Amino acid sequence: MSAREPSIGAAYGLAVLRTRDVEYEVDGVVMVGYLAIDDSSTVPVGGRRPGVLLSHEGGGMDGNVRSRTERLAASGYVAFALDYFGGGRQPPFEEAQARLRVLLDDPDGIRRLGRAGLEVLTAQEEVDADRLAAIGFCFGGTMSLELARDRAPLRVVVGFHPGLNSARPDDSANITASVLMCCGADDPIIPVESRRAFEEEMRSAGVADWRLELYGGVGHSFTNPSIDARGWPGFAYDERADRRSWQSMLDLFRERLDPT
Amino acid sequence: MSAREPSIGAAYGLAVLRTRDVEYEVDGVVMVGYLAIDDSSTVPVGGRRPGVLLSHEGGGMDGNVRSRTERLAASGYVAFALDYFGGGRQPPFEEAQARLRVLLDDPDGIRRLGRAGLEVLTAQEEVDADRLAAIGFCFGGTMSLELARDRAPLRVVVGFHPGLNSARPDDSANITASVLMCCGADDPIIPVESRRAFEEEMRSAGVADWRLELYGGVGHSFTNPSIDARGWPGFAYDERADRRSWQSMLDLFRERLDPT
Repeated sequence: MSAREPSIGAAYGLAVLRTRDVEYEVDGVVMVGYLAIDDSSTVPVGGRRPGVLLSHEGGGMDGNVRSRTERLAASGYVAFALDYFGGGRQPPFEEAQARLRVLLDDPDGIRRLGRAGLEVLTAQEEVDADRLAAIGFCFGGTMSLELARDRAPLRVVVGFHPGLNSARPDDSANITASVLMCCGADDPIIPVESRRAFEEEMRSAGVADWRLELYGGVGHSFTNPSIDARGWPGFAYDERADRRSWQSMLDLFRERLDPT
Repeated sequence: MSAREPSIGAAYGLAVLRTRDVEYEVDGVVMVGYLAIDDSSTVPVGGRRPGVLLSHEGGGMDGNVRSRTERLAASGYVAFALDYFGGGRQPPFEEAQARLRVLLDDPDGIRRLGRAGLEVLTAQEEVDADRLAAIGFCFGGTMSLELARDRAPLRVVVGFHPGLNSARPDDSANITASVLMCCGADDPIIPVESRRAFEEEMRSAGVADWRLELYGGVGHSFTNPSIDARGWPGFAYDERADRRSWQSMLDLFRERLDPT
């Protein structure tokens, strides 16, 4: 268990972050997500803030996704990182891989996990449920897309080195969110065939607003500063792609969520 | 001839633009480019500003590229739109197409045209020749890339619905600039095969920093508000893609040219 005590007042630039772990249950498993809200934000009278749902990498809930949850809160969003393994932890490699293999063939299961996280987010009194985004990393990107395919009321979906393809590609006709996918050109998990299939899927489905940013010389997990220690071929942190893709996401949030 | 008198003090937000047509000769043809500098910019003592070279669409020098030249000047750059047809004009359609067909097989000719424009830009006393970018639209994107393939001292190359491919793809090994290509997914001039060939070219050449942004549902000439009047299938202005790609360019300029 990596569940932590509620913390109030964590310093984050000029923000005053209130963060806490949130337990919730999906299919009998206790999930432990991570919520962050900036108490220094000036919210208009009667107003609420846009909410951002984060879905972690295939390795599980880690410091990286928690840190990004806090960064989003400091940027004026209510941010909640869901947990799709249970316990808010990083399972042993084989366990995580086995779970992902099952999920990849179970879009309903993916959608239940995503929906449960979204419910935690929208249950927060500070959230404006009409201004929601879902972002995700690796398999978390798949989960974010799957939510949009499932008609979740999202304005924005962003994937970082995301799994692009679905067991139910036709459901992409349901996507109304602005879609931004950020991919490394040398990512072995998202080969050119996968990107091309995604492009065809978006076109066939008539998705009104989708974009794919392709970063040259960049591999999988480019947003994860800890990934290099694994030594996996084709996986590498890339500070430049990390920074640029995050900026593209913030630009899109400004355009579609208008937090300020 | 669309050459215009020098103008001083054109209002552009808070900028005070000084603009003028510049005549220069390439291969015996008199070109008429368009230069814009903001006289209100605060330039550090002894300091100079980054320079941006613009290359127009395959239709010729038009109000759109002139307007963008002024916008870049208002953003703090010395901006020069080169002319590659002669006379700073929009030739009749058949004449322009015939000229482009010749140029596509003549990378040396493209490079001479680009180099001549770059010389006009760097000859301006306000320009810091160590901080240069080349941007281009349609065939102008091809020209900007070709300059980088020719070892022109560029820090940034940006193409908007650009021709991506070269008669000398191996020369991409010379590219040291940060490359950003902005493409519509439904652009009939840049089909998926062309994008894929470009990706392979960049990879094989070992270009250190390249990126391709792919906009769903977007066709050719998406930056040209006048294009819809032509009624050409697959050609369409797209305000959203125009705005986003321009922002991506400015972000990259900030990163690599640091004008402020």
